[in-house]
Amino acid sequence: MNGIDHIGIAVKSIDETLPFYENVLGLKLLKIEEVHSQNVKVAFIDGGNVKLELLEPLTDEGGVAKFIAKKGEGIHHVAFGVKGIQERIDELKEKGINMIDHKPKPGAGGAQVAFMHPKSGHGVLYELCDKEKTE
Amino acid sequence: MNGIDHIGIAVKSIDETLPFYENVLGLKLLKIEEVHSQNVKVAFIDGGNVKLELLEPLTDEGGVAKFIAKKGEGIHHVAFGVKGIQERIDELKEKGINMIDHKPKPGAGGAQVAFMHPKSGHGVLYELCDKEKTE
Repeated sequence: MNGIDHIGIAVKSIDETLPFYENVLGLKLLKIEEVHSQNVKVAFIDGGNVKLELLEPLTDEGGVAKFIAKKGEGIHHVAFGVKGIQERIDELKEKGINMIDHKPKPGAGGAQVAFMHPKSGHGVLYELCDKEKTE
Repeated sequence: MNGIDHIGIAVKSIDETLPFYENVLGLKLLKIEEVHSQNVKVAFIDGGNVKLELLEPLTDEGGVAKFIAKKGEGIHHVAFGVKGIQERIDELKEKGINMIDHKPKPGAGGAQVAFMHPKSGHGVLYELCDKEKTE
């Protein structure tokens, strides 16, 4: 694990949430993009050593929309930076971890990502995030 | 804000959770201590650029015990490193933020900490964490 890449935060509206991060906390918006494979609009905010990733559902389908419907807005996941994501997935499975994604899928910024099942993470949804091919 | 100091994670048992962080993720335990002002036992894990703070309730009272009873184990808060915590609290209040703590209180590792109300943080419980007097 190469440190924490980002903290994913589920929000109903990026437009309504950005003033808190920009004007109150004084943090900088890095970029906004749509990630259709995960049915979300994403805003990356520079948190200094870690990025904050605001996740707004594009439709009522998908994990983030269901998360908000069930639990409300809040912290959705924590992403570790990794290299060689398929090998990391295979290693975790060998250690008994229940992976949601057995193969990497496309995430924001062209990264390859895979999620661990939160039951394996003691309630935390951990993501592996491999940016090797994007940088 | 001087970056993210740590991510707080509510767990029922540090002993039962540590093997996941140490053996599966390969991360290093930094220290364990009891923070009686917050009714928790705390384990700090080195996440690389950010610390992971496992929070185990010492009794059925207190915020972390109530969090687990209501929502189960999972991510509890995100802590920003700050300097001059009382001035930061006052600035946030001037900007309309609802603070849980209007004055800093003692946190783990001798830090001075204060929490923002999650309604002001769009569902995220943010902590200010000032270690100026400890380092």
